[in-house]
Amino acid sequence: MSELPSAVSIREVGPRDGLQNEDPVPTEAKVRLLDALSATGVKWIEAVSFVHPKAIPQMADADEVWNQAAKSPNVRYSALIPNSRGAQRALDAGFTEIEVVVSASDTHNRKNVNRSTAESLDDIAALIQLLHDHNATVEVIVSTSFGCPYEGDVAPQRVADIVDRAVADGADRIAFGDTTGMATPRRVTELLDAVRGGHADTPLLLHFHNTRGTALANILTALEHGITEFDASVGGLGGCPYAPGATGNVATEEVVHMLHDMGIATGIDLDALIEAARLAEKIVGKELPSGVLRAGPRTRTIPA
Amino acid sequence: MSELPSAVSIREVGPRDGLQNEDPVPTEAKVRLLDALSATGVKWIEAVSFVHPKAIPQMADADEVWNQAAKSPNVRYSALIPNSRGAQRALDAGFTEIEVVVSASDTHNRKNVNRSTAESLDDIAALIQLLHDHNATVEVIVSTSFGCPYEGDVAPQRVADIVDRAVADGADRIAFGDTTGMATPRRVTELLDAVRGGHADTPLLLHFHNTRGTALANILTALEHGITEFDASVGGLGGCPYAPGATGNVATEEVVHMLHDMGIATGIDLDALIEAARLAEKIVGKELPSGVLRAGPRTRTIPA
Repeated sequence: MSELPSAVSIREVGPRDGLQNEDPVPTEAKVRLLDALSATGVKWIEAVSFVHPKAIPQMADADEVWNQAAKSPNVRYSALIPNSRGAQRALDAGFTEIEVVVSASDTHNRKNVNRSTAESLDDIAALIQLLHDHNATVEVIVSTSFGCPYEGDVAPQRVADIVDRAVADGADRIAFGDTTGMATPRRVTELLDAVRGGHADTPLLLHFHNTRGTALANILTALEHGITEFDASVGGLGGCPYAPGATGNVATEEVVHMLHDMGIATGIDLDALIEAARLAEKIVGKELPSGVLRAGPRTRTIPA
Repeated sequence: MSELPSAVSIREVGPRDGLQNEDPVPTEAKVRLLDALSATGVKWIEAVSFVHPKAIPQMADADEVWNQAAKSPNVRYSALIPNSRGAQRALDAGFTEIEVVVSASDTHNRKNVNRSTAESLDDIAALIQLLHDHNATVEVIVSTSFGCPYEGDVAPQRVADIVDRAVADGADRIAFGDTTGMATPRRVTELLDAVRGGHADTPLLLHFHNTRGTALANILTALEHGITEFDASVGGLGGCPYAPGATGNVATEEVVHMLHDMGIATGIDLDALIEAARLAEKIVGKELPSGVLRAGPRTRTIPA
């Protein structure tokens, strides 16, 4: 335990990645959730995506949400974009931290954007140039990094090659997406062993789903490998698009609860975060899969 | 990863610990579940408990269940007993592996049996003698080893002292129960550091709940400390008595799924186990909290 980092950086992705994968909710509810999260002490939030409203109706009101949100000076906000049109909207809205996505699996990438992984990397190279010209940083999210729902295992070397290409093209951060919860401690170790070495100056962020119960074990493994940036979604918002009723994003309060107990700082007020998770549950109108939301933190005792 | 054990011993506790904490189900259903589990390749099952039927109606038919079950010669079956009356029933039924329980927390122990931890350890010493006289082995389960729902943290040294006493009295195995899901990787490390050393010849088993999402992270931590015996409950049967709707026992298929992917053998056929979990869900008539039951193993791809 003594070799673990003393602090980690949690990016809260519920407002974007979470709500994008739930049934649409009103603008006002999105603003309320964003504002509640901004007040938890979390220092980094994925706020919205600027995607085509026909493709993703859940994010059609991204501009309104962002305009109405009470932006905290203590929080960094990022936005996801799919193309140059989205990039322009994000820049116009004032974002300086931008995310783009490519899938490590050709089949998955074609299903999403009808292009090969290599073609998407070409597009991303141009987007990085455009965004850097406007003083924004670019994070390249490599989805299906730990496995593809269509192809199965994805070779760590294939992911490493994608990282090499994206870093050479100027990516400021690489995120590895466990898109359908196929990551395990073994897969985390194999991927990090393959990727690490050449990219000491590029931050690596891990994004786990808890579809098969392994999310916190994966985070523990990543901590042991020195990773200090993780995505998580309040309440576990987001679901799993490939298995109805299954869990998607790991719940932020489960991550924070474990980390704090291990003496690893996040800056987040766990009680405030649990309240935000309760609000998220109210907003989507269904039970979310967070154990810490359900049972409370381990420190909450009951009268004897 | 290279220092991890190559095989672990899973004890399936769904038929006893799981069903004892669900609404009562018919004898026939219990037998069917027990038989389905005996055919999964699992080598160890907690079959029944011999407790007073008024105290625990869920186990009132323990003798009938055990009589009707198709015992496999490849499976060890254990039974839990609360006292000498239960011990006699278990011996009469032919059990040679017996479990007894004591809580590391005085408050929790008094709530359960109206006696202090020290008084229960006296009772257990007599039970060990009785059972050893009949050539049965005795496992002492120390519940609330990682925290008490009433008292909060339980000092690892207190648990270590209980272990010293039980081993001195002849206990053949010590199990540590995470009764309300308060264990985290830190607590696992602290407990094992406190307990290990003096008891190299006494097997240690860990029993985790997934109430706050940490179960597989805890198991990973325990593996790193050389532990090779774990309890788990098919489908996650059992619930959490202290938080309605919350998860209790870690689901066996989630444990097996992670271990197999890490190259750690269990002898269990995961597909057969998932079918048994589906049966468990049918028997209790509600959705169980197992992610691997819901989403299938990571190797199960969907047609592109």
